[in-house]
Amino acid sequence: MKIAVIGTGMVGQALAGRLAELGHNVTVGTRDIAVTMARTTPDGMGNPPYSAWAQAHPTVKLATFADAAAGAELIVNATPGNVAIAGLQAAGADNLTGKVIIDISNPLDFSQGFPPSLFVKDTDSLGEQIQAAFPQAKVVKSLNTLAAALMVNPTLLAGGDHSVFVSGNDPDAKKTVTALLESFGHTDVIDLGDITTARGTEMLLPIWLRLMGALNSGMFNFKIVR
Amino acid sequence: MKIAVIGTGMVGQALAGRLAELGHNVTVGTRDIAVTMARTTPDGMGNPPYSAWAQAHPTVKLATFADAAAGAELIVNATPGNVAIAGLQAAGADNLTGKVIIDISNPLDFSQGFPPSLFVKDTDSLGEQIQAAFPQAKVVKSLNTLAAALMVNPTLLAGGDHSVFVSGNDPDAKKTVTALLESFGHTDVIDLGDITTARGTEMLLPIWLRLMGALNSGMFNFKIVR
Repeated sequence: MKIAVIGTGMVGQALAGRLAELGHNVTVGTRDIAVTMARTTPDGMGNPPYSAWAQAHPTVKLATFADAAAGAELIVNATPGNVAIAGLQAAGADNLTGKVIIDISNPLDFSQGFPPSLFVKDTDSLGEQIQAAFPQAKVVKSLNTLAAALMVNPTLLAGGDHSVFVSGNDPDAKKTVTALLESFGHTDVIDLGDITTARGTEMLLPIWLRLMGALNSGMFNFKIVR
Repeated sequence: MKIAVIGTGMVGQALAGRLAELGHNVTVGTRDIAVTMARTTPDGMGNPPYSAWAQAHPTVKLATFADAAAGAELIVNATPGNVAIAGLQAAGADNLTGKVIIDISNPLDFSQGFPPSLFVKDTDSLGEQIQAAFPQAKVVKSLNTLAAALMVNPTLLAGGDHSVFVSGNDPDAKKTVTALLESFGHTDVIDLGDITTARGTEMLLPIWLRLMGALNSGMFNFKIVR
């Protein structure tokens, strides 16, 4: 599939790399190609700069948000939550029309330090805001509840015996995303319902962050035992 | 141990019954004994009235909030979140001083229908509000993330292979609660940290409620796979 990954950070790199490895035609979208490629230092989390990552992933192309989205059949939104809508607006609503958007972003507000709070929650969600901003796109919230490494390689932990969620209004879009998640190795993809159920997965972030502290590692995941 | 269970509903009955079964000296606290015993119809969730439950549990005593708390070494707060602080105030701050309070309540606001929203979240929690209201008590938030039947009999599901959490400021109080949870059959009690981590477990409720809808059952639980 022709896939655009919007965002050049840790999550974008994880998704782009894994999708390319699985044989998809992947273009990463960025606001400014020259700026992205000029960065030579790791980000605040210690992840390598995009240029270094790109050298190791020669089949993954880099393009502007708009060019990446225009050529894609499916869009992965891997931007930080606070710039998610702006990034998709830069990609262009016309370039998103009729397409599935896998929204991985979380509405984290780090303005008061750590742990972050959520800038939207409870009676609304970032997934819903993105769906409302791009009504012609088919937004499926997913993968926002686990570490990037596990999003794309779930078998790294307990042989993959844990859960992920999909939330969205379009049943076919959720089927497409579920198939993609299964190709990553996910074996328990739970359809929570329409896009309002993204409130639930986004509100998992506070306990995720506290668990990361308590366990001293991000290599864990929720399994819904039933 | 002499234990007061504050609240006569489904969660209070589950805790009181199980604690009595394990040999504890249990008193259930209620606002008005006569009113509680006069009820003859099931509650809104179909649970039997307290009087019917009490007949099946003759060793469990019923007393006012204050009398129950006064005679207890440990308090279980099993009231609905919207009346939690009022119930504990009625129990009397003096009767809570120095004691462990296991707070199971969730800040659910049903005023706009289903699903409920949370009346406190993200930058505060009901657990913290209770700790702030009763600074001489040792509040441990726990058990608020799973169905009442599983709180007290975790082995009913997958042999107990799933997780519960404790949040609180007092390490010894968390040890006491952890031992009690283990006596119920819990095998994975995760200490998230201080009482502010109750924000995380209380914010699990939205996905819990959506999962109950998606799975058509409340007999599930989170396991933290790591």
